[in-house]
Amino acid sequence: IHESNSFVTNLVSSLSVDTETLQKQIDELSTFSDTPAPSVTRVLHTENDVLARSYIKNLMGISGLSVREDAVGNIYGEISSSSRGVWIGNEAELASVATGSHIDAIPYSGKYDGVTGVLGALEAINVLKRSGFKPRRSLEVIMFTSEEPTRYGISCLGSRLLAGIESLAKDLTSIVDGKNISFLDAARSAGYAKEHNDLSSVFLKKGSYFAFVELHIEQGPILEKEGTSIGIVTAIAAPASIKADFEGTGGHAGAVLMPNRNDAGLAAAELALAVEKHVLESGSIDTVGTVGILELHPGAINSIPIKSQLEIDIDEKRRNAVIEKIHQSAITIAKNRGVTLSELKIVNQDPPALSEKSIIEAAEAVSKELNLTHKVSPMGMIFIACYKGYSHKPEEYASCEDMENGVKVLALTLAKLSLQ
Amino acid sequence: IHESNSFVTNLVSSLSVDTETLQKQIDELSTFSDTPAPSVTRVLHTENDVLARSYIKNLMGISGLSVREDAVGNIYGEISSSSRGVWIGNEAELASVATGSHIDAIPYSGKYDGVTGVLGALEAINVLKRSGFKPRRSLEVIMFTSEEPTRYGISCLGSRLLAGIESLAKDLTSIVDGKNISFLDAARSAGYAKEHNDLSSVFLKKGSYFAFVELHIEQGPILEKEGTSIGIVTAIAAPASIKADFEGTGGHAGAVLMPNRNDAGLAAAELALAVEKHVLESGSIDTVGTVGILELHPGAINSIPIKSQLEIDIDEKRRNAVIEKIHQSAITIAKNRGVTLSELKIVNQDPPALSEKSIIEAAEAVSKELNLTHKVSPMGMIFIACYKGYSHKPEEYASCEDMENGVKVLALTLAKLSLQ
Ligand SMILES: [Mn+2]
Ligand SMILES: [Mn+2]
Ligand SMILES: [Mn+2]
Ligand SMILES: [Mn+2]
Repeated sequence: IHESNSFVTNLVSSLSVDTETLQKQIDELSTFSDTPAPSVTRVLHTENDVLARSYIKNLMGISGLSVREDAVGNIYGEISSSSRGVWIGNEAELASVATGSHIDAIPYSGKYDGVTGVLGALEAINVLKRSGFKPRRSLEVIMFTSEEPTRYGISCLGSRLLAGIESLAKDLTSIVDGKNISFLDAARSAGYAKEHNDLSSVFLKKGSYFAFVELHIEQGPILEKEGTSIGIVTAIAAPASIKADFEGTGGHAGAVLMPNRNDAGLAAAELALAVEKHVLESGSIDTVGTVGILELHPGAINSIPIKSQLEIDIDEKRRNAVIEKIHQSAITIAKNRGVTLSELKIVNQDPPALSEKSIIEAAEAVSKELNLTHKVSPMGMIFIACYKGYSHKPEEYASCEDMENGVKVLALTLAKLSLQ
Repeated sequence: IHESNSFVTNLVSSLSVDTETLQKQIDELSTFSDTPAPSVTRVLHTENDVLARSYIKNLMGISGLSVREDAVGNIYGEISSSSRGVWIGNEAELASVATGSHIDAIPYSGKYDGVTGVLGALEAINVLKRSGFKPRRSLEVIMFTSEEPTRYGISCLGSRLLAGIESLAKDLTSIVDGKNISFLDAARSAGYAKEHNDLSSVFLKKGSYFAFVELHIEQGPILEKEGTSIGIVTAIAAPASIKADFEGTGGHAGAVLMPNRNDAGLAAAELALAVEKHVLESGSIDTVGTVGILELHPGAINSIPIKSQLEIDIDEKRRNAVIEKIHQSAITIAKNRGVTLSELKIVNQDPPALSEKSIIEAAEAVSKELNLTHKVSPMGMIFIACYKGYSHKPEEYASCEDMENGVKVLALTLAKLSLQ
């Protein structure tokens, strides 16, 4: 271990990140979008998603990684569609060290979210190859399917499935998107899930990986404000989401007198404001709540909304108390307005994920060796500072310098872990 | 005049309304819908709209009316698409007496709104023909294009254009729907506006009509509650509508702390509730306000709304004070939330239309002759009582008996006016 660590230390001086190519790739990948530049929209199993996947698989090949997709093959069976590129280590029988992220993009978002963790991972592999590094444990780059919940309301779809969540594998065989297209049909049209409907084939065996580390833009303003390039993660708060539906009696906007109304739209408006109120009253600056989706039915100017649907995102570990308050508000609002709370569903309510201590230590050691100031953050992975903390919008931006530092930290962390 | 009125009185005994056929036609027409029964959705210049138009034109032909459409022909030039069936009177050079309504239906609405005034008008013509009546002034049945604002946000599109509103003719040459399809392209795909873009050809000459009377379901609960079949109208309050857009800064739902947000969606929620508040505070039970449309952009669960758009419908003559208050609220909300009120547009702000005294008198006299109790209402035309006042939803319903009385009153009113 001493010897291998000194080997890593020697690497430091020979590291060269090709930031120009990395930036070019980020720009090229952003053109696979359903909306015009500078915005990016790339939704699971759409045409642009399929094209972007090919782009990534091609780069994996160029980096000398052997590409597998956990569909069709005999080992993984069918489906998923997470793409992995593997660099076989000298002791290939040991559990691998993996890195990666996602390339799907919510409507009208930016080009760095997720993408820096996939293209940056490939560049980290290139960096190590150029330096002459020989991995002991195999190194893998994984592109996870659908980190964003855009199409089916499920975030981290691919990684949850890899984690072996049985209920998810079952749900995915019947779930449909907003246009009533099933997950399986969409996956098939993208070239996955070809032969049968059992998605449990995607589950990983326990112990498949020795370590996983992800490079990502911060999606928050703290690193930039403090002039720090790199953040190292100790825990990731999983967002919870709430889906609330109200049903009223509707009617003609010009004809039903105000006292006779049971307006599902106004119930939704009240609940949206209640979300804000409960979050602000939580007393925790880190707790956030967002009504990103609010839909009215039938959605005509001269028709009183008969149905409304909200989707609410709540982040941070104290979220459970807030969720309970939102639920109570929804009940009260429905009662006061004479509408029915026809659904209140809490999804994705995972506990926070804690980073492996060994990874944190490796990344911190690497930052020191690189003479980079870093910040240990209560949320994230390896974070790259980003402009004003902007994310999920076209203005999303990370500088080449910060990306270069991120790739260096990632490359050396992978190297270190590979030799353990 | 005395002689002709006694002729009308003689008609009373010989009137036979074929309510069975009328009901069958209402049911048949309701099948031209984009949504499943019992709901009806029929949007301007869609396939189902075109099919429904053919259905009406065919019935006009069967009733012996000569059908003109104010498109393509030399007299009206091009466009519009209001269909008219004319029964030539003995003194065809006199201004005609017209009746009619619309057959477009907002999303997920019912089958009586508008339709009873078109099919009922045709049945009124049939009634008069069967009775041996000979019109002096020609009688016309007009089906107006797009009474509902569904597709282009403009209500009474066809009738406003007939009324010669220059600005509307101009606006229609550039307006697009939510899918960016232009009015002209859609009209062309439906067989209208074929040759050039100047829609002023649709304008009517002043004095084209001696009188216009419309049969319509009440869209309110008053007649039914009082056990009255028929309402006769003295004025129609035109609805005003407000379009309000907010623009905030958006961002990632999990990353932007609450104090740093400028959430356009919450601004919209506040404005929706302010509309309700201002309407309730107006002190007038008749004043109503509705937020029928509330859209968030980008509309993803994990993205803070960067834009929102509301469409607000305000009815009743005291509406102007309410509109001003809503405008003030929108400004205040935008200021407090650090979002921009990027648009506040008041559309369709016409003054109330007053019914012609001669028409009211004719309809009232006819009701007396038919021994029908009637109610003179401050809003409407000839109203048929409807179930619970329901409209713009699938539960919309008028009884055959009330429709029969409505058709009788319409037929005799047309006859009376034709002889004046
Ligand atoms: Mn994201
Ligand atoms: Mn991401
Ligand atoms: Mn209507
Ligand atoms: Mn109507």
